[in-house]
Amino acid sequence: MEVFPESLDRLMEEFRKLPTIGKKTAQRLALHLVNQDPQVLEAFARAILDVKDKAHPCKICGNITEGEICPICASPKRRKDLICVVEDVQNLLAIERGGSYFGLYHVLRALLSPMDDMGPGQIGVEDLLKRIREAKDEGRPIKEVILAISPTVEGETTMLFLADLLKQEDIRVTRIASGIPVGGSLEYYDELTLSKAMEDRRELD
Amino acid sequence: MEVFPESLDRLMEEFRKLPTIGKKTAQRLALHLVNQDPQVLEAFARAILDVKDKAHPCKICGNITEGEICPICASPKRRKDLICVVEDVQNLLAIERGGSYFGLYHVLRALLSPMDDMGPGQIGVEDLLKRIREAKDEGRPIKEVILAISPTVEGETTMLFLADLLKQEDIRVTRIASGIPVGGSLEYYDELTLSKAMEDRRELD
Repeated sequence: MEVFPESLDRLMEEFRKLPTIGKKTAQRLALHLVNQDPQVLEAFARAILDVKDKAHPCKICGNITEGEICPICASPKRRKDLICVVEDVQNLLAIERGGSYFGLYHVLRALLSPMDDMGPGQIGVEDLLKRIREAKDEGRPIKEVILAISPTVEGETTMLFLADLLKQEDIRVTRIASGIPVGGSLEYYDELTLSKAMEDRRELD
Repeated sequence: MEVFPESLDRLMEEFRKLPTIGKKTAQRLALHLVNQDPQVLEAFARAILDVKDKAHPCKICGNITEGEICPICASPKRRKDLICVVEDVQNLLAIERGGSYFGLYHVLRALLSPMDDMGPGQIGVEDLLKRIREAKDEGRPIKEVILAISPTVEGETTMLFLADLLKQEDIRVTRIASGIPVGGSLEYYDELTLSKAMEDRRELD
């Protein structure tokens, strides 16, 4: 027996398309909304349509913005000769929260992943190269590209690929350190993390 | 520094208002949507507005429907002399999935909870009484009301209250059994559950 009306079923499906939302959660969210005042549903729908109409990637770095270029690219306070490459906007935000990085960003479209048909042409690497070359031509060359990509299989592959490519452009390429998270207990981390942490060791001042 | 544009911030807030959605999840969901095609966002917004315009509680039982009365109340196959009282539509659905109940439902508006200012006037008990009295006046009296409410503090309070009230109407009032879930291991359940399971024991045929 069909228990739910079609409109409610459809809303559940829309929720299910979102990442990390399973069938039960989708149902709970849709049933929550159906019990709200009409204004609540209107505000939600309006928020979605506003994002559709107003938000888009920054022309320069790929960060989400409502203007042509994002506040980070537009800021006179940021170092223009430093580019931090991240895999998505959420990681950009994580680094911004850290509060110790003052350069620019470049948001990739994806990571290299042959299994998912993601080759060099799909991840947005030409935009990065173009940006670096233009900066050089305009006499304000990029000094360093920091690869701040998660050290997963796809992440490592992407970093190796980008490092090879960028070295040809005569640019310093670095990657964020692998190691033990602050507050973490050595014994709980795997051999690879430990040996990376050893490799990336630094002098104590 | 403001990293996200206002429209995206607002969408995150809308997601955060939903149950079980925290700050990080809201951010992930909003960022997922901003990267989708405009049609995807339009479909989502449309689904919400459709629910707003079309879905509403069944006039009789409180189940969600697009018609005046829900398919369960309208079905000629359901027993009209049995009412199962549930705390919300999700629990109604859970019982429907069980597939062994063929009577009608009554969805409460809330459970009794003095802490949250939920008294008898707020939970929708008059609708239930009115429904039972009308059925009696029309010569098709309700034979049994099954209270299928979670055995939490609020649930137990509500069941006791409803049982008292309904017995005055000269109706059989039952509650679903408390006990050990099927597949559960006795040792993991608390004393109260065990003693309830003992109380509710039944003859083996």
